[in-house]
Amino acid sequence: MSDRRQLALNLFIYPGGHHEAAWRYKGSAADRVLDISYYQELAKRAEAHKFDAIFFADGPALADNVRYAQRFRLEPITWLSAIAAVTSRIGLIATASTTYMEPYNLARLFASLDHISGGRAGWNIVTTSAPQAAQNFGLPEHPPHGERYERAREFIDVVTRLWDSWEDEALVNDPASGIFADTGKVHTIDHIGKHFRVRGPLNISRPPQGRPVYVQAGSSDDGRAFAARFAEAIFTAHQTLASAQEFYTAIKRQARVFDRSPDQIKVLPGISPFIGSTQAEADRLQDEFNALIQPEYSLTQLRQMIGLDLSGFDLDGPFPRHLIDTQSAQGVASRFKLVIDIVDRERPTIRQLVQRLAGARGHWVIAGPPEKIADNIQAWFEGGAADGFNVMPPWLPGGFDLFVEQVVPILRKRRLFRDDYTGTTLRDHYGLTRPESIFADTIQAIA
Amino acid sequence: MSDRRQLALNLFIYPGGHHEAAWRYKGSAADRVLDISYYQELAKRAEAHKFDAIFFADGPALADNVRYAQRFRLEPITWLSAIAAVTSRIGLIATASTTYMEPYNLARLFASLDHISGGRAGWNIVTTSAPQAAQNFGLPEHPPHGERYERAREFIDVVTRLWDSWEDEALVNDPASGIFADTGKVHTIDHIGKHFRVRGPLNISRPPQGRPVYVQAGSSDDGRAFAARFAEAIFTAHQTLASAQEFYTAIKRQARVFDRSPDQIKVLPGISPFIGSTQAEADRLQDEFNALIQPEYSLTQLRQMIGLDLSGFDLDGPFPRHLIDTQSAQGVASRFKLVIDIVDRERPTIRQLVQRLAGARGHWVIAGPPEKIADNIQAWFEGGAADGFNVMPPWLPGGFDLFVEQVVPILRKRRLFRDDYTGTTLRDHYGLTRPESIFADTIQAIA
Repeated sequence: MSDRRQLALNLFIYPGGHHEAAWRYKGSAADRVLDISYYQELAKRAEAHKFDAIFFADGPALADNVRYAQRFRLEPITWLSAIAAVTSRIGLIATASTTYMEPYNLARLFASLDHISGGRAGWNIVTTSAPQAAQNFGLPEHPPHGERYERAREFIDVVTRLWDSWEDEALVNDPASGIFADTGKVHTIDHIGKHFRVRGPLNISRPPQGRPVYVQAGSSDDGRAFAARFAEAIFTAHQTLASAQEFYTAIKRQARVFDRSPDQIKVLPGISPFIGSTQAEADRLQDEFNALIQPEYSLTQLRQMIGLDLSGFDLDGPFPRHLIDTQSAQGVASRFKLVIDIVDRERPTIRQLVQRLAGARGHWVIAGPPEKIADNIQAWFEGGAADGFNVMPPWLPGGFDLFVEQVVPILRKRRLFRDDYTGTTLRDHYGLTRPESIFADTIQAIA
Repeated sequence: MSDRRQLALNLFIYPGGHHEAAWRYKGSAADRVLDISYYQELAKRAEAHKFDAIFFADGPALADNVRYAQRFRLEPITWLSAIAAVTSRIGLIATASTTYMEPYNLARLFASLDHISGGRAGWNIVTTSAPQAAQNFGLPEHPPHGERYERAREFIDVVTRLWDSWEDEALVNDPASGIFADTGKVHTIDHIGKHFRVRGPLNISRPPQGRPVYVQAGSSDDGRAFAARFAEAIFTAHQTLASAQEFYTAIKRQARVFDRSPDQIKVLPGISPFIGSTQAEADRLQDEFNALIQPEYSLTQLRQMIGLDLSGFDLDGPFPRHLIDTQSAQGVASRFKLVIDIVDRERPTIRQLVQRLAGARGHWVIAGPPEKIADNIQAWFEGGAADGFNVMPPWLPGGFDLFVEQVVPILRKRRLFRDDYTGTTLRDHYGLTRPESIFADTIQAIA
């Protein structure tokens, strides 16, 4: 292992790629959207190039405007279980909602994925921003932001204690003595809170990682406080180095408030690279994608981010900044600010704005030759803006192939990225410690 | 394909086998309880012998008395997803609870497993009989039987309509026109009921089988009515041919009340075979297992079935029949009657009774040479008692190997079991029709 601090790199998988028109691009595998072997191949490729993890987003509702876009929801935990079966090292991060699941069920699913994969599971903790999810779960309305985070905090506490409820030595499994479990080391959690009452223990022994890795992706104020307290890896969206630096510094400072070591929180911005042999070629590639955009869909996406419906407006007219009330952010809170910043900085037309966002829903899109991409990655990594990246190829699999074949070798040459894995678990890859059970050395138990 | 009616055979997997002391037997793979490759090997072996399906039980709570027994809960949907990845034909049946899950989440998980496996998923619908589950989900007490089944009926209605919410032709996925989904064929379900309010549609297209196969395993009065209405395969426990015949006849008759064709309901009793080259050898094998029983555990099992705690009683004394009030069945309703029938028929000691039940928790245990096992299977199959069997090897993998190597060839020779698969889905194997979406030809849609 290199003594030098090195990048963490995840492959963030959207079926045909991250550009909203990727599925219409000739090189994408759009027709394999429901083919598990396609995702298994992507994971094996990422593993061959020693990536830390693959990652699936999720939400328990149909995406808006699925007529015009391949915004398809694969259920991440099942898909990653099937991917675990054909890989051996790469981390497997699934998104799951604290608002629309029960902690006992979630704790089991992730413990199971961690056992199946030999310690490679990560949980991307979300509170779910899509309001239509509420209607699939009998709620009169989508709970407001603050309430969702309050429930999320209690949820994590419950799930953590369920994972800890079997101490590491509790599973004895000794046929001769007839003792399967040392029940002195299996604990009820007896949680009674505002949102949950959960007795425990969990019905499976402690996950290989102790706890699957806690990942978080919200960058609102609530999201930041939550991340500083719980997250071990943070997926975040930034358009500029300055914005990423501000976030990075703030999160690491906030973590200290919770007595956490800053190096136990990996900040991983998204990056969506259009790679060409020259700048002009990369720009042309990006233009090719933007020409495939369907405005009906793009405006739906924009409405989700800023709460404003611009259908009927002239796409080539200026973005109507005066219609935005910055005092009452709508939509996805962390994206709202990002979009308004772009508008105030660049004063785009509506078409220019949706093209700006089409690449990766507000994440950093960069076009250029491999050296430029590598230089920028290095600048963010060494400039206090990132511990690594969530790589979001504009299209798949080709866009990822270009990245691993042309950019990763440069990073490796500069000793910024590993030559090989040095451990077997996702915690090993990220350099995170394996937590001890909170019940270690306690005597209260089920027996 | 043989024109003759043939057996359906499932392998029901318990980690070390079904006998409660299996994990203590020298030939069991007890040490591989958490090793996914062990379960993958079992599934591949069952597939090599053309079994219809493998099956996992489940419940969202730790089993009682895990100190003395390998009663370990693998989460079935994740484990089956990992097994799907290394098999291509065998059906994959997971148990999941209508009492402790949300229909939207369950519909997604099974739709996902069905997509991953190319149409091999089955859902064993349970209402969960273990009262301790309630304490893991914030309920003041375990809901009574009738209420659980009421919720289950509504739950199934919601899940069915979610699976149907994308008509078969809704996924267009045409890059040229830019149409991903024909939203005229994607439907909200707008369910408003006593237990659930679910708008839909589901966020994934229709499962390959239309709907995963509906399996059911309760044999109480509520369970029977439920099965006659919804189940396509029924797992059931019987100690005698007469009991199985009564059940078989009643269920098929009840199905007609719901306008269902009796041949669309497969009745599959459990069978746990101890196989030896002679009767004496098979009996000795069974004795060997019974010598490994730990009474502390057996009495817990018995208490769950009949609601009576016999710790402290003389194991070699008569079973205290007078303590049982047949008017107020306790424990697992379908097992209560079965145990009382054994007691009244055989007047066993407590030890004899727990040995009788240790083999497969009340399922049919039979010991003998391969021909005797095959003869009995044929007698049940041709005598109006079974459409096939849930094979529950006393220990794994060896107990299953004996069955497929010694009994299955006899069944095949008699043309009672398939030589090869004739289809690719679980519906194909069971001979079940693929249901059309209830929304086919309706015009209400999300667009």
